[in-house]
Amino acid sequence: MPAPAPPPPFTADDYRARMARAAGSAAEAGLAGVLIAPGPDLTYLTGYRPTADTERLTMLVVAAGQDPVLVVPTLEAPDAARAPGAPALTLRDWTDGKDPYAVTAPLLDPAGRFGVSDNAWAMHLLGLQQALPGTSYVALTEALPMLRAVKDARELSRLAAAGAAADAAYGDILKVRFAGRRETDVAADLAALLLEHGHSQVDFTVVGSGPNGADPHHEADDRVIVHGDMVVLDFGGLKYGYGSDTTRTVHVGEPGAEERRVHDLVREAQQAGFEAVRPGAACQDVDRAARAVISGAGYGEYFIHRTGHGIGVTTHEPPYMIEGEERPLVPGMCFSVEPGVYLPGRFGVRIEDIVTVTEDGGRRLNNTPHEMAIVE
Amino acid sequence: MPAPAPPPPFTADDYRARMARAAGSAAEAGLAGVLIAPGPDLTYLTGYRPTADTERLTMLVVAAGQDPVLVVPTLEAPDAARAPGAPALTLRDWTDGKDPYAVTAPLLDPAGRFGVSDNAWAMHLLGLQQALPGTSYVALTEALPMLRAVKDARELSRLAAAGAAADAAYGDILKVRFAGRRETDVAADLAALLLEHGHSQVDFTVVGSGPNGADPHHEADDRVIVHGDMVVLDFGGLKYGYGSDTTRTVHVGEPGAEERRVHDLVREAQQAGFEAVRPGAACQDVDRAARAVISGAGYGEYFIHRTGHGIGVTTHEPPYMIEGEERPLVPGMCFSVEPGVYLPGRFGVRIEDIVTVTEDGGRRLNNTPHEMAIVE
Repeated sequence: MPAPAPPPPFTADDYRARMARAAGSAAEAGLAGVLIAPGPDLTYLTGYRPTADTERLTMLVVAAGQDPVLVVPTLEAPDAARAPGAPALTLRDWTDGKDPYAVTAPLLDPAGRFGVSDNAWAMHLLGLQQALPGTSYVALTEALPMLRAVKDARELSRLAAAGAAADAAYGDILKVRFAGRRETDVAADLAALLLEHGHSQVDFTVVGSGPNGADPHHEADDRVIVHGDMVVLDFGGLKYGYGSDTTRTVHVGEPGAEERRVHDLVREAQQAGFEAVRPGAACQDVDRAARAVISGAGYGEYFIHRTGHGIGVTTHEPPYMIEGEERPLVPGMCFSVEPGVYLPGRFGVRIEDIVTVTEDGGRRLNNTPHEMAIVE
Repeated sequence: MPAPAPPPPFTADDYRARMARAAGSAAEAGLAGVLIAPGPDLTYLTGYRPTADTERLTMLVVAAGQDPVLVVPTLEAPDAARAPGAPALTLRDWTDGKDPYAVTAPLLDPAGRFGVSDNAWAMHLLGLQQALPGTSYVALTEALPMLRAVKDARELSRLAAAGAAADAAYGDILKVRFAGRRETDVAADLAALLLEHGHSQVDFTVVGSGPNGADPHHEADDRVIVHGDMVVLDFGGLKYGYGSDTTRTVHVGEPGAEERRVHDLVREAQQAGFEAVRPGAACQDVDRAARAVISGAGYGEYFIHRTGHGIGVTTHEPPYMIEGEERPLVPGMCFSVEPGVYLPGRFGVRIEDIVTVTEDGGRRLNNTPHEMAIVE
């Protein structure tokens, strides 16, 4: 079966629309604009990914009522001009030896408050603060946490493709041997399978066997997996520039009664979290729904993390499904629903799907069975 | 011949001495301390390299009169505690959901001015500015550009090993075929050779053939190298955590008269730059010495970049050998001396060695012949 064709590339109009929406959101939030550094924000708004993130200032200025301007080093201007979003913005280049903040300052309201990419370099923020002492700044995820949260149809098709590829990798990993091999060996298999199924980048491959599975932050180590182990498999990366992230918990040989009970409980919690997804529900409602199932069964103290996180051009981003996050779910948001139970020194169980908010509920982008798979 | 043993690792005492020197330099510069983010500064001062640079605050606080403190996320504290410099500092961890700036603020003079790593995240600088409105900040390379510039004996031995490995790669590349192959093919050979000779990381492999050599920022493209081409080879990376960077310009077949003349001129300029290296000379003197040779021969307008840059835990850092840089050379500094001549549309020539300042002059860390090699 030939591989399906990659999705059509984003166009300059797509990026133009994203930048216009960012300008509008900034104005609504009382900001004079947003200042975007290389990284996921710049990728999202322009498609431009500089080959290296250096001390030379590259910064996109987006503000209501003016065309977006990308300030770039002259050396990198030809590369920036080839970015798919370039037709939707103006390039302003600066040469080595010149002051890049003096080039940027005229683009900014000298008394304005600006959102700035979290990962912009401190030296660049200091340069702007010095050039324009009347300006003030706030981190972009604090000011506009939902900037990248709502996905359009083209983004959704990429996220669905990434999810399907992760599902295919899961189908394949069930066929490999677990018993007698190190966690790191199985993790390497998972990484290879993600790449084989079209990922361009692997972000994580968690293999938590036996007691290691009880640490949700465990990745993979030299532990040799043995018959009788529960094994948490949590893996993802980027395909077509968008993220995958799924978790299934498998068992080497037949599980015992408590293992079955805990696994069934987490399945039920995941289903409850999924069913809480609908437009207008608060993010925290998804967490509460999943947590209620686990707490109701007396395992509440063993569910020690939030229920989910957003996904898009990165594999971890807002919105967060966590108590206290009262913002509403909106159609097009994509995030994980991943409750777990972690019994210290014994084993852990986690089940995770990426879910997108539809007009009337939620839709899973991962679709492998939730039943506990038995591996060898 | 067996590979030589790697140099002994840096000890906690090495890192303690570096942090003490940083505290002293900060005090001399009128700073209350320095705030160090993950990246080359943190690697240099503590040996700690977090696996990922994320939104979770990791920051080293170094100030005169107090022990260094590394603020880390609780999840990453075990990893930080294993860093070689950990015994020379105190770890202070903070858990998800807590305010990391509230944890950091008591470590800082609330009215102090601090140097902050250039690449610290803007969101972290904003967090500190908000937590301590009486503090002020300056980028570390502006406040203490020479913080990492003077290398001790153990650093020098690593830089020498990196230089020798790059030299060995150059020796090997002369044996490969150039004519009829793409620049990118030769660049891939160079990368493989650097790794074969013990580099852990390749930073750049410039192959500039014919007219491409006339662009000093050209890396390598699909151009097929032909008989009669001059070819600039500029490559480097990290070995044992320290950098290499060397350039030689070779010719495919016998060169013509002007090619020989320009190459001889650049050799002479490189030698003049090298001979200007001695303690107490200004950085700009190295640039002037090399430039005088090229300008004197009427090619001044074709030498379009500075003569050199420092090298250490990165392959590009202060000090810079450039007109206007009046700081004095100090024994232990390491930097490139790399004059070039670039004839647009025709060819370029560059010759580069890493040089370290000794008690009475300079010593090359690259030692392959400067004569133009003839390749096939």
